[in-house]
Amino acid sequence: MRVMVTLNRQYRLAARPVGLPSRTDWTFGEEAVRDPADGEVLVKVLYVSLDPAMRGWISDAPSYIPPVAIGAVMRAGGVGRVVASRHPKHSVGEHLVGTFGVQEYALASEGLRRVDPAAAPLPTYLGALGMPGMTAYFGLLDTGKPKPGDTVVVSAAAGAVGSVAGQIAKIKGCRAVGIAGGEAKCDYVVRELGFDACIDYKAGDVRRGLKQHCPSGIDVYFDNVGGAILDDALACLAMHARIVICGAISQYNATAAVKGPANYLALLVKRASMTGTLILDYADRYGEAARELGAWFASGKLKAREDVVTGLDNFPEALLMLFSGENTGKLVLKIAD
Amino acid sequence: MRVMVTLNRQYRLAARPVGLPSRTDWTFGEEAVRDPADGEVLVKVLYVSLDPAMRGWISDAPSYIPPVAIGAVMRAGGVGRVVASRHPKHSVGEHLVGTFGVQEYALASEGLRRVDPAAAPLPTYLGALGMPGMTAYFGLLDTGKPKPGDTVVVSAAAGAVGSVAGQIAKIKGCRAVGIAGGEAKCDYVVRELGFDACIDYKAGDVRRGLKQHCPSGIDVYFDNVGGAILDDALACLAMHARIVICGAISQYNATAAVKGPANYLALLVKRASMTGTLILDYADRYGEAARELGAWFASGKLKAREDVVTGLDNFPEALLMLFSGENTGKLVLKIAD
Repeated sequence: MRVMVTLNRQYRLAARPVGLPSRTDWTFGEEAVRDPADGEVLVKVLYVSLDPAMRGWISDAPSYIPPVAIGAVMRAGGVGRVVASRHPKHSVGEHLVGTFGVQEYALASEGLRRVDPAAAPLPTYLGALGMPGMTAYFGLLDTGKPKPGDTVVVSAAAGAVGSVAGQIAKIKGCRAVGIAGGEAKCDYVVRELGFDACIDYKAGDVRRGLKQHCPSGIDVYFDNVGGAILDDALACLAMHARIVICGAISQYNATAAVKGPANYLALLVKRASMTGTLILDYADRYGEAARELGAWFASGKLKAREDVVTGLDNFPEALLMLFSGENTGKLVLKIAD
Repeated sequence: MRVMVTLNRQYRLAARPVGLPSRTDWTFGEEAVRDPADGEVLVKVLYVSLDPAMRGWISDAPSYIPPVAIGAVMRAGGVGRVVASRHPKHSVGEHLVGTFGVQEYALASEGLRRVDPAAAPLPTYLGALGMPGMTAYFGLLDTGKPKPGDTVVVSAAAGAVGSVAGQIAKIKGCRAVGIAGGEAKCDYVVRELGFDACIDYKAGDVRRGLKQHCPSGIDVYFDNVGGAILDDALACLAMHARIVICGAISQYNATAAVKGPANYLALLVKRASMTGTLILDYADRYGEAARELGAWFASGKLKAREDVVTGLDNFPEALLMLFSGENTGKLVLKIAD
C-alpha cells in the first residue's frame, strides 16, 4: 500500500539551549515521509505532548536517556491515527499513543499503546490517562506509600502530574494539600479537583501555609518543582515522611548551579526519605495503571483537564508556557484534527 | 547505705555556641552528690563519650531530642561503675553504659546497659560495641540494605561510626570504599580495618577517586559528613542507590546556611533514595545489635580503636578534635581509672 504523504513538517533541535529554549534553538523544516517498513506503522500525529522533561532531553548533562542529538527531530510523546501499517498488531484507523516527536507524521514500531477515543478525549491520553497520570500513579503509590489519613502535599498541583497525584491521594483516603501559582489555579485545585487546600506560592509564605494546612506535618511530599518550595516542605515534615522527587521544574532552566535543598538534614531529624521516581521503570505495569486511572476517570473520581495550543509552528513558544506556569492541566499542542 | 561522695565535678552549658564551641560556652563547677533514690543507681563515670551529635544537642534548632538547657550538665554517653544502688536490677560493682553527662558521678534509673569488662575494654562499649557501632549496624543494614557484591562508600571512614559501617559492609560481602582525611587515616582504614580502598579527601579530588574506586557506581553511600563530599557521592551513584544520612559533621558548626546537596536530582536520574537514620528508633533492638557486634568483635572480624584523651577538665578542647578531624576511631575522655 502506498500512502500519498508528501511532506512532513518537523521541529529539529538546532542548538543546546542555555537557560530557556528560544526559537533559534530549533529548526523548522519539512521532508518527505517514506512508506512504513515491515513491522512499522505510519501515524498521523494529532496532538503533541509538551512536558517539563523535554528540557532535560535537550541538555547534554548525563540523564536517564540519551539527549536528543543536534539535528534530530525533537523527542515528544503524542497521540495520532494510523494511516498506514505493516505492523502485525496495529491497523489503519486505530489511535495510538507513542513517542512520535514534534512532527506531523511518525514511523514507529514499538512503545505503542492503543487508545479509545470514545472513552476519553484524545488529549486526555497524553495527560491524566497517559504518561503524566501514570507518573503520578506509580510515584505516589509505590514511592510515597500513602496511608489513609496521611497528609499528602503536591507541588505544581494544577499541572499534569500534580493534579493526578493529589486526586489519587484523595481516592486513597488522604488529606491532599496542593501548592500552585495564582488564585485561579488554587481555586481549580480545590473546587474542581477536590484537594482539601491549596497554597498560592505567588501570594505569600509557602512555609507558613504548610504549617497552617498540615498541622501534624507532611507525611508524603510529591515534588515537581524543587528549589525553595522543596526546602519549605522539608521544614514541615512529619516523622518518617516520604518525599517523592518527580521533577524540579524551578531548576531546569537554571544557568547557575542547581539549588540543593539546604534543609535536607530534616531527613535525619524526622527519619524521612527522599526518593526519585521515573515512569520508565514501570513499563511492565502501564496496563495496570491505565486500567485503574481509566476506571477512576469513567466514574468521575478522576478529573482531567488539558490546555490545548493549536498549530505545530507554535511549538517553541508553547513549550515555554510550562516554565512560566501559564498552563493549567496538561499542556498539549494540537497539530491536526 | 551512705556513700561518702562529697564532690562531683561537672561541665554545664553556659551559652549556645556560634560556630565551634569554645571554653567560654561552658562552666566547670562542682557540687555534692545526693544518695540514690529508690530505683536509682549512683555511677562513678570512668569514660565520657565524645560524639558529633553533641554539637546538635547544644543548638536550639528543632531536632530529634530537646536541646541541653542553658545551665544544665552537658549531655553525654558514658561508661562507669555502680558505687551505690537502689535499683532493682543493678548492683554495686557492675559496669554500666548510659547517658551520664560530662561529670564524675551520675544518678540514673533508665537507659542503662550492663557491659562486661572482660569481653572488651570499657571504652569499646562507647565505640564499636556502643551507640556508634549500633548506629552503623542499623543504618547500614536497615536503611542501606547492602547486597553481596554491592559497592558501599563510607565517609568519615576512620571515625567511630564509619569504621564499623565499612567493616560490616565487608562482613556482608560488599566492596567497601572509605573516605577519610590524611594518609595515616586512609592507611588505617585499608590496612587495619580491611576496606578495599580509601580516598584521602585532603589529598585531591574525591569525585575522581570515587569514579576510580567505584567503576560501576556507588550502591550504598553511608554519609557522616554532608557538604561537598555528599555532592561528590551523588554524582557517582549506581542505579537504585541508597544514601544513608547518618550525619553531616561538615555542617554542624556552620554559621551560614547549611549547604544543600546541589546534585540531589541524581536521585531522580538514578531512581535512588536518601534516608535519615537515628539510633534512638532502634531501642528495642539494641540487644540484637550488641550480640552480633560482640560476636564479630570476639572473632576478630570487627576491629575497634579508641582515641583516649585523659582528664575531665580537657572536655572543651577534646570535643573540638571531632570537628578538626584529629581523632582516629572513637574519641573518649577518660576521667577515672
